[in-house]
Formats: sequence, C-alpha cells, structure tokens
Amino acid sequence: MNPSARYVGDRTFVVEDTDAVPPGPGQVRIDVAYTGICGTDLHILHGAMDHRVRLPAVIGHEMSGRIAALGEGVTGHTVGDPVTVMPLNWCGNCPACAAGHTHICHRLDFVGIDSTGSMQRCWTVPAGILVPLPADLPLRHAALIEPTAVAVHDVRRSRLRAGEHAVVIGAGPVGLLIAKVAQTTGAAVTVLELDPHRRAVAADLGLPTVDPVALDPAAHVRDATGGAGADVVFEVSGSAAGVRTATELLAVRGRLVVVAIHPAPREVDLHRVFWRELEMIGVRVYQRDDYDEAVRLVHSGQVPAGRLISRIVPLEHVAAAFQALEAGGDVKVLVDCGGDT
Amino acid sequence: MNPSARYVGDRTFVVEDTDAVPPGPGQVRIDVAYTGICGTDLHILHGAMDHRVRLPAVIGHEMSGRIAALGEGVTGHTVGDPVTVMPLNWCGNCPACAAGHTHICHRLDFVGIDSTGSMQRCWTVPAGILVPLPADLPLRHAALIEPTAVAVHDVRRSRLRAGEHAVVIGAGPVGLLIAKVAQTTGAAVTVLELDPHRRAVAADLGLPTVDPVALDPAAHVRDATGGAGADVVFEVSGSAAGVRTATELLAVRGRLVVVAIHPAPREVDLHRVFWRELEMIGVRVYQRDDYDEAVRLVHSGQVPAGRLISRIVPLEHVAAAFQALEAGGDVKVLVDCGGDT
Ligand SMILES: [Zn+2]
Ligand SMILES: [Zn+2]
Ligand SMILES: [Zn+2]
Ligand SMILES: [Zn+2]
Repeated sequence: MNPSARYVGDRTFVVEDTDAVPPGPGQVRIDVAYTGICGTDLHILHGAMDHRVRLPAVIGHEMSGRIAALGEGVTGHTVGDPVTVMPLNWCGNCPACAAGHTHICHRLDFVGIDSTGSMQRCWTVPAGILVPLPADLPLRHAALIEPTAVAVHDVRRSRLRAGEHAVVIGAGPVGLLIAKVAQTTGAAVTVLELDPHRRAVAADLGLPTVDPVALDPAAHVRDATGGAGADVVFEVSGSAAGVRTATELLAVRGRLVVVAIHPAPREVDLHRVFWRELEMIGVRVYQRDDYDEAVRLVHSGQVPAGRLISRIVPLEHVAAAFQALEAGGDVKVLVDCGGDT
Repeated sequence: MNPSARYVGDRTFVVEDTDAVPPGPGQVRIDVAYTGICGTDLHILHGAMDHRVRLPAVIGHEMSGRIAALGEGVTGHTVGDPVTVMPLNWCGNCPACAAGHTHICHRLDFVGIDSTGSMQRCWTVPAGILVPLPADLPLRHAALIEPTAVAVHDVRRSRLRAGEHAVVIGAGPVGLLIAKVAQTTGAAVTVLELDPHRRAVAADLGLPTVDPVALDPAAHVRDATGGAGADVVFEVSGSAAGVRTATELLAVRGRLVVVAIHPAPREVDLHRVFWRELEMIGVRVYQRDDYDEAVRLVHSGQVPAGRLISRIVPLEHVAAAFQALEAGGDVKVLVDCGGDT
C-alpha cells in the first residue's frame, strides 16, 4: 500500500494508492516521513514545467524518511536508518561533469522534477543520492535540509566572511534560510522585504529587517557600513526592482548573488558594475559539501528548522497544502507522508 | 616654451604656447614624448565629460617621456630617465582606499581627465605616479603601456589560464590588447568583430577572428570547445548585442568580463546566469602590478605595440589626430609632443 500524490496536469493533484516499487540493484526503498513544498513545486502545479514532468507525476524533493528496504549490492546503509536525499543524478560524461561541476550537468536529472519524487509513502531511489542523518534529528526538521543546502551553496559562492555586511532582498523561505546561514559566517545581515508579515517572521528569527518603501535602502546600508555599501547582496525577490536595488547597494568589489530565477532578462546597470568593479555570481542547487554543512546547521539549531515550518498537512490533503502556500502567510509547508512512526 | 593642446569645449582644441609649470616639492617635470588618444579622450571632445573636465583643459593620459626636472625632496629618479605614468591619484581615506582598492577610490583623480594631462611638451606631475621604463624601450611603444595595463588588469580579473578558451567581443584597440594579453596566458583566444577592416587587423596580429554575421558564434565556440562553451568572454563592444552574445557563449561557470562602458542599463539573461552558474566581473583601470606586467609585455614584444600604432601626428595637428580616429580605420593614434629627442 503506497498512497501517492500525483500531479495530473490542469492544476490538479490526485491522491491514490499505488504499488510500492521494489528496490532494484543499487536502489533503496524509503519510508517517506515528510516532503516540503517549494517554489518549484508550485511552478509545476501551475503548468509552467509541463515540458519537464511526465504525467501523471509524483513530485517532491525536500524530504526525510527511513530506509525500508535495500536492493541488491547496496552497502553502507541499514534498514531503519534516517535519511534525506540530494536529488541530483548526473551523466558523468558531459563537459560540465568532466570539469567537476556535476551539479550543473548538461543532462541533469533533478529527482522530483525530471523523475519521480517523494510525495508518496514509499519511494525507491538510487542509493547514491542518500544522505545519512543524525539519529536524534527530528525528521520534520530534516525535511528542511535540501533548501538549507541551497542557502549554504549560495553563501559559499558569495565568499561572505566575518566582518562583512550582507543584504538579502526578499524574505521568502529561501531568503530566510540564506539570511540565517549568512549570519553563521559572522557577517552582519540585513533583510529587505516589502511584505509586513514576512518582515515580522524575519524579525522573529533574529534578522534585522528594512521596509524598502519606508526607508531608502541605499542610504540605510551606507550608514550601516561607514559609507562603503554592502559586500554581498543576495537577490531572492526575482523582481526587476530587486536587481536594480542590488547594484545600488553594493560596495566597491561587492558581489551580487543571483538566487531567484528571473523568467525574463533584466536590465542591469553595467556602468555601475564597471565603476565599482562589481561581481555577479550565478548559483544553482548545491554540491555534496553543501549538504554536509546543511545537516550540521539544522542539527545544531543554527538554522532553526522547526520555527520555519508553519504548517504540516497529511498527504491526502496535498491540494490544501498547495492552496495554503499560494494564499501567502505560510513559510514552509510540509506534507506528512506517513513514515514518521 | 611649452606648446599645449587645450580642449576649450564645443568640440574644439586650441594649440598654444604656455609657460611650463616648475615642479613643486614632490613633483617632477616631464618632457613628454608621445601621448596616445583613447576612447575616453574622444568622449571628452564630444562634450560627454564636461562635468569632469575644467576648461580650458589639457587632456591625455597614455604617455611616455623623460624626466626633465626634479622638485624638492624627490628621490629615486634622475633627469633623463624614461618614464610613463599610472595616471591615478587616490584619497587614501575613503572606504575603497581603506579596503585596499585605491584604483576605485570614491574620490579618484584620474590624471588627464579630472586634472591636467599630457598633451603638451612639458608636464608637471607628482613623482608618485611615475613608472620607470627600460632604457632600450622605444618611447613610441611605451605610450601603449597604459592601455596594455588596462588589458592586463582585465585578463587578471578574469582568472583566465592555460587550456581555457576566451572570446573577445569587439576588436578596437582595447579588444586587441586584451586578446594579445590573453594569448600570453596560454589560453585559446577568438575575436568576434563585425567590421572587416578590424577583423583584418586582428588577423594580422595572429588572432583567430570570427564574423558573427557570417558564422553563428555560439555554434562556432561550442564546436571549438567540445560542446562546453567559452570559459571567459570579454565584452568590449559596449553594445546590447554584445552582452546577449556573451551569455550565450559561456560554459558552465564561465566568466563574463564587462570591459566596455555601457551608457545605458543592459538586459542580461539572468536565467542563464543561474542555469550555468555564470559569473560577471566588472573591471576598471588597473593596479600597480598590472603596470609592471604591462611594461614587461610591451618590452618583450609579446604585446606588439609598434604594430598597433597606425598614425603619429604632431601636437600642432591634434585636431587632425582626433578626426582620423573618428573616421575609423585607425588602431592607435599617437600625438607627438616633441620630447623624443
Ligand atoms: Zn526545492
Ligand atoms: Zn553531465
Ligand atoms: Zn585611456
Ligand atoms: Zn579613496
């Protein structure tokens, strides 16, 4: 018995009982505990990624669970072990893989988008994508390791360090995680967010926030940095205005990290890029080191995963979970897939 | 007797005899041999920089000459020594200077724009901006050290290395210098240029060239790199199309160096910046290490300065020199200031 949520197109999920897939050689079956919903999953629901998902599709890639069965030849894992996954399968042969950038493989299989995901009770995956978890880490919290690994990757690529000043534009779940991870470097962090509710959530998490309408962010950051400007800006809003603000805020040799996915080309002030020798850095998913650091930060509580979870919805009500997320007001919504027993 | 070319506004130069300025404490007087004309000088002539120049203005910053007189307290230099200058005076106190980025000082005095330049026979400058030259380096060639230092800075910031593939978009003087400096790293270099005359000049200098109209540059670069794309693209065209082409050409983790000064914000494909983890790097002038390398490259002939000089015009005909440059067809035009005796 394997209840699974299937996206069937037309903004619709159907929850049905299917047969669990027995693990083949090199695979494991996982009892899924929780699956987080992220912006990409919303995009899929809205039909924006129908060119990548094969219907009916079980999606979901932010997960936690326990190993339920081992396929032939799988070593180093035991039934009952708590795990999450790094949901990337790469080809190993393309120019990006050859250069060691396997997470940007030209033929990347992002598990949960390009192949079957974790919004089901029983999930069978290649053992190679498993990431072991500490025994005492609540599985609810562990569902936030994947988005935390995104934040760790983004902060690592920014080269942010103690004594510097970072600004995060946009306080959705990814922005909040980036801000919390950025604080662990010893840098000062300011969050810019238009929405008062999101600002309140950020402030609750110990993040200094600025309403960019009430206060000129460039003047604020200049004052906070002795006239220098921000060393790093993370653009997480996805808006044209966010990009414009980012270049305005940056100090000489400042780094602009493009986190949000911008659907259209954006105007960038290349004169300022020249004048201040700015840098722009693209970031995509994560590498294995980022996962190890994400496990450490969630386990230690430096990333307060429990406080970021605003709602847990049973698998059979997955549609309601997506509706809640679309309505706004939530931070991270988890789907309870039944395996946290 | 000090003949000097003075920009008096309204696209006009007046050449007059003025009094030579005696060197004060810490200053030296130089007998100027040659002054190169660059794009910035053309901008000044067109009135685009009237907010920065004080009329009547002696401009010019790409120069060579010999020390003619030492002011009080100047040590380490001798009358007759061949020199060029690194035309930057910084404040030493602003946040950029404090961070060690003196070449991007918030109050930078660019000598020859913000203060008096070298289009005159006798030029008095602070000794701190002098750069000594090898005795056997022709002073004509030495006038190209400043733009070569620009190219060295740009290539250094790009982190280009042997085995990589670089593309230079735009084969004006700066593009050609970047391409030649890029070749000294051991990287493969391709130059994209629309103008057939400029392509011929580049080919003469041993640079592989592509006409982006006749040949799809993205397909060409993919073929040349086993499907990977370019590791580094130098955008030297200043055009919106150049920026668009640059992001198309780049490999995973490729670096886009923004060399040209873009007067308007440009649309940038931030989705591709994310998808391939691209980097954009702003570059401005040079630092002292870049000058030392530029002297070495011009002296050794790895940067063939002599072959880049297309015309030498006497100071009294400076207006004709600017006209030639505006008409196109020239590479580097030097003004003969009379000091190469
Ligand atoms: Zn996600
Ligand atoms: Zn690959
Ligand atoms: Zn110049
Ligand atoms: Zn300064």
